[in-house]
Amino acid sequence: MFKKILIANRGEIALRIIRTCREMGIKTVAIYSTADRDSLHVRFADEAVCIGPPASRLSYLNIPNIISAAEVTGADAIHPGYGFLSENAEFSQICADYGIKFIGATAEQINGMGDKATAKATMRSAGVPVIPGSEGLLESVEQGKKLAAEMGYPVIIKATAGGGGRGMRIIHNEDGFEKAWNDARTESAAAFGNDGLYLEKFVEEPRHIEIQIIGDQYGKVCHLSERDCSIQRRHQKLVEETPSPIITPELRNRMGEAAIKGAQAIGYEGAGTVEFLVDKHGDFYFMEMNTRIQVEHPITEEVTDFDLIKEQIKVAAGEPISGQNYTPKLYAMECRINAEDPANNFRPSPGKITNLHFPGGHGVRIDSHVYSGYTIPPNYDSMIAKLIVSGQSREEVVTRMKRALQEFVIEGIKTTIPFHIKLMDDPGFRSGHFTTKFLESFDFSDL
Amino acid sequence: MFKKILIANRGEIALRIIRTCREMGIKTVAIYSTADRDSLHVRFADEAVCIGPPASRLSYLNIPNIISAAEVTGADAIHPGYGFLSENAEFSQICADYGIKFIGATAEQINGMGDKATAKATMRSAGVPVIPGSEGLLESVEQGKKLAAEMGYPVIIKATAGGGGRGMRIIHNEDGFEKAWNDARTESAAAFGNDGLYLEKFVEEPRHIEIQIIGDQYGKVCHLSERDCSIQRRHQKLVEETPSPIITPELRNRMGEAAIKGAQAIGYEGAGTVEFLVDKHGDFYFMEMNTRIQVEHPITEEVTDFDLIKEQIKVAAGEPISGQNYTPKLYAMECRINAEDPANNFRPSPGKITNLHFPGGHGVRIDSHVYSGYTIPPNYDSMIAKLIVSGQSREEVVTRMKRALQEFVIEGIKTTIPFHIKLMDDPGFRSGHFTTKFLESFDFSDL
Repeated sequence: MFKKILIANRGEIALRIIRTCREMGIKTVAIYSTADRDSLHVRFADEAVCIGPPASRLSYLNIPNIISAAEVTGADAIHPGYGFLSENAEFSQICADYGIKFIGATAEQINGMGDKATAKATMRSAGVPVIPGSEGLLESVEQGKKLAAEMGYPVIIKATAGGGGRGMRIIHNEDGFEKAWNDARTESAAAFGNDGLYLEKFVEEPRHIEIQIIGDQYGKVCHLSERDCSIQRRHQKLVEETPSPIITPELRNRMGEAAIKGAQAIGYEGAGTVEFLVDKHGDFYFMEMNTRIQVEHPITEEVTDFDLIKEQIKVAAGEPISGQNYTPKLYAMECRINAEDPANNFRPSPGKITNLHFPGGHGVRIDSHVYSGYTIPPNYDSMIAKLIVSGQSREEVVTRMKRALQEFVIEGIKTTIPFHIKLMDDPGFRSGHFTTKFLESFDFSDL
Repeated sequence: MFKKILIANRGEIALRIIRTCREMGIKTVAIYSTADRDSLHVRFADEAVCIGPPASRLSYLNIPNIISAAEVTGADAIHPGYGFLSENAEFSQICADYGIKFIGATAEQINGMGDKATAKATMRSAGVPVIPGSEGLLESVEQGKKLAAEMGYPVIIKATAGGGGRGMRIIHNEDGFEKAWNDARTESAAAFGNDGLYLEKFVEEPRHIEIQIIGDQYGKVCHLSERDCSIQRRHQKLVEETPSPIITPELRNRMGEAAIKGAQAIGYEGAGTVEFLVDKHGDFYFMEMNTRIQVEHPITEEVTDFDLIKEQIKVAAGEPISGQNYTPKLYAMECRINAEDPANNFRPSPGKITNLHFPGGHGVRIDSHVYSGYTIPPNYDSMIAKLIVSGQSREEVVTRMKRALQEFVIEGIKTTIPFHIKLMDDPGFRSGHFTTKFLESFDFSDL
């Protein structure tokens, strides 16, 4: 087992990793920028090394300084957390070159999954469903109709130069194809000076469902069931839950097996997440694979009782896994508490926390690096706490989450707590029937 | 279901009950003495009524004032928590007379279990093992020998007027009986002016193991397995855990069935605890039944996923239980964080908390009514927080507890945290092999 792990990250995830290392008897090295001197991750680590000024590229993305910190402190492994260098192939490779175990994916795996086209091709050949579409640009309306007939309506045509919905048309049947094609070409040419179009199967009422997997060094991969991350604002997840209200045991099995096949196809070792879109018919399509721990990993921990950071460290140290898949025995949900003003377009609200009191009691977990008197620097991600709640039913979890949110006291800054409280009361959210578009029609004005 | 519950208590248990009521959509009424104006239970309740000055008998034990508060606020039930009026038969009866549901035992049940002799007789006739002993005083050495031979050695003779170990002798075989008898009589006569002696089976290497039960209004009772509360100082529990390191599934079943039989014998409704001593042979003996929720109930919640306060409220409202027994799926432990100086004979240390930060993360639960800036009044129990940790093995729980204790920041007062940290490192404690006498030889001097 490792003797000392350097945590190449900050904030709650750095503290999260330190906690597990302490429980495992592994020494820890924190790194910090000058903006983070007062962060709890610095206080709770056994050693701490300042690696640069506030700007991330000079500190938390500064590979030479981080490697130096690991060398100076004699760390035999580096845990990158999420974000920053966690999916940086160069960093993974340099760690390997220096004989420091990178607790994450290899450079090759990161590159393979980082390039979307490669990732999709790899998954398709491993038998994982990907969203059907034209290979490259459509050459003619006839070719488009033929493809659409093969993959089944509805389909969507998109401008290759597109964005913001322009040059994009959803087509529900063959009769509408030609008009949509012509309209999209015209719009696209006018907007982008480029009328190239491609075609994809249109995913109806999509939900973002991801499968947590873990693999060991001996080719065994298991899944720890799904997380539903459909509550997003501009592709930023705000609330995650498990199990998903729309996933049946049969679908969980199929998606779990697909995720395992995909991971095995690249010889994946460690914790990873395979993200899918699931449509209203229960068909699922690979989106991407995250070769790292994710922000929302605690909800999986709460329903499986696994400490995923511990499992990551154990497999990185060469321990085998049982290979058994896990189904949730409980329900869990996470709200991301960000220092943002939800009534003001989620504008960041850094500054000093003048008063702080966390909720507690049965089924309530807090992962946070902040404390009363702490000043949130403006330089980084605005997430200041994860509030994770578990219970025996989705309804219990939602009511418990609301109770915990109402107990949460943070003064001195704006937070997303009022949004979350309103969400917990929303009939659409409570019903469990919503898509990734849910927040597009949410009224944030009265928060 | 109840519309509004008055919580006839203070501190963490009042807050604990408010939390569950909020999750159930039940309004709450807090009561408070003038010493508790700033307590969180007052802040988090929907209504709060001051019921008297600091002295408990004038406030938290003041039945007329509490009943008035319930009447004025229109509460349809009263939850008494633990301590104070929770096992007061008169209060239970008055609630019943006023048509307010007392969430606890009836006056008859409280009286029946409150009187030790009656409780033992009830349990014995229900087939629950009680510590064998003479019925009243021994009349002669011959009678004593005969009884001892029946119940098996070792036995203990005790002065009926005794205390502090005087007039008490442990006897390991018949040869030693007469001398011990004579010595005890002489000592007892000299010390107390009364040479009456009685005889009991001596419980070797006792552990305090209690069974959590819950019964509904329809005669169904189930058990939620055991809690091991052997870590006590002067009969005050300091640490509790579940499952007990010494309980086998077979013994759990037998003790669980005994507890259920005992509870059914008195038609018990609600949550209760049957306390046993278990000796080194795995024989168990009824000590007493607590007809209320207990301080240490959260460890059972963590391993069974039940919210015991919710279950109490549900059965009080007439909901039936499934009757299924529960075995622990996890391990959990609770440390009682008291405002006491463990290096100074656990002297109470009330005062202002100048800085407070709770531990967090996976498997960590905090139940507490205090906050940064809160002044602990000197009038009540010194417990300020319960730190509850769960995990997949006892070892994981112990290491996680130590990690959490080390993260716990409380400044301005002395607490029992240094004692708990030392305990988590103690080889005897870690081994799981200890008795209720464990802390008698514990070195508190270096805390």
